[in-house]
Amino acid sequence: MPDTASQQPTAPEAAAGYEPTERTVPTRSRERAAYDREVVHSILDEAYVCHLGFVRDGAPVVLPTLFGRVGDRLYVHGSTGSRPLREAGRTDPGLPVCLTVTHVDGLVLARSAFHHSINYRSVVVHGIAHTVTDPQERRAALDAIVDHVVPGRSADSRPADEKELAATAVVRLDLREVSAKIRTGGPDDDPRDLALPHWAGVVPLARGYVAPLPADNLDPAIGVPDYITEL
Amino acid sequence: MPDTASQQPTAPEAAAGYEPTERTVPTRSRERAAYDREVVHSILDEAYVCHLGFVRDGAPVVLPTLFGRVGDRLYVHGSTGSRPLREAGRTDPGLPVCLTVTHVDGLVLARSAFHHSINYRSVVVHGIAHTVTDPQERRAALDAIVDHVVPGRSADSRPADEKELAATAVVRLDLREVSAKIRTGGPDDDPRDLALPHWAGVVPLARGYVAPLPADNLDPAIGVPDYITEL
Repeated sequence: MPDTASQQPTAPEAAAGYEPTERTVPTRSRERAAYDREVVHSILDEAYVCHLGFVRDGAPVVLPTLFGRVGDRLYVHGSTGSRPLREAGRTDPGLPVCLTVTHVDGLVLARSAFHHSINYRSVVVHGIAHTVTDPQERRAALDAIVDHVVPGRSADSRPADEKELAATAVVRLDLREVSAKIRTGGPDDDPRDLALPHWAGVVPLARGYVAPLPADNLDPAIGVPDYITEL
Repeated sequence: MPDTASQQPTAPEAAAGYEPTERTVPTRSRERAAYDREVVHSILDEAYVCHLGFVRDGAPVVLPTLFGRVGDRLYVHGSTGSRPLREAGRTDPGLPVCLTVTHVDGLVLARSAFHHSINYRSVVVHGIAHTVTDPQERRAALDAIVDHVVPGRSADSRPADEKELAATAVVRLDLREVSAKIRTGGPDDDPRDLALPHWAGVVPLARGYVAPLPADNLDPAIGVPDYITEL
């Protein structure tokens, strides 16, 4: 578990952690919350997709999407025709969003149904998404999104041309109001349940990479690059 | 890819699929959308957590949570003290939510940065969440949530007692306005890029189960049950 002492950073420590707000302090299991920058970044960087929430016609919408991170800025991209990206572009001063990533690290089996749980690491980011218009920032963001999927890949692919760039909207969300939540360890059974005859423990989960499948039309002379075999 | 002919079910086929609505027909990549009941259920059932979106003070909130399915009803649970569950209970006629699950099945590497993608299966459910008060439905929902994590587990654990039940809120979301979205296959490179010297293909991902870790205080005479080794 991360050091919860960082939850209320004083001035000299502020750079190491995000400042908790009413929205980022959970009502339950506060000991699971973390605001440490490195912890937040590592959880974000390990996720292939985020779940992006926004409000449309008064109702919530949650869509999975790729994303990238550059320092304290997150980027998502999409077709200029996609609804949320159009809305982020049109709305002044931007589109209120909530961006969440979650890793399921294990299934927690307790003797009691009540104490069943999962081990997980999640990050929730609240903020306002803005369309990025600066050409240099847009290019850096698109590289970050590709490199988020496979580190090092943007340098080994054809960069977007002007037509592709024109068709792509890039939206930025700054990491300011953000928190992580982490559960680790075994089941928290009640003492009265310990003698029950049910198996208790954790079934850990891990991400598995399967052997890469070359495209049908790939030149057989092109081998699998190291940045893929090292995943 | 699922049969897109089921997207506009006529009366005799209606039972097999969910009816598309304005919210469940994507603005892009419509060929990836699916409304088949079995496809939607299988994607939901394979996910350990969903991302539940709702609106608080005009802003979106997206939180990961366990869930269970009984036929065309989804259930989430939580402490009666948790904010979204309180809101679903207080609000008449319920709390507008969007519940989304996503599986990342592979990393899709194209020659061009623009055509990078992932293979995925997602389900998005729109609807109104209601607090469940019927005791029998509440018990069935809690069993479904435990069995969603490990099928068969609810029968091999101590059921919730009255005190635990009183502390647990159960919320229901009916599967009505729902769609799946699926991408499979290799990269869609432009013909002009096929001769570029970049590796292209798919890196498939798979969920891995690691050997179960018994709780420290587990009686060593209790072996790992079949329903866990069969995961």
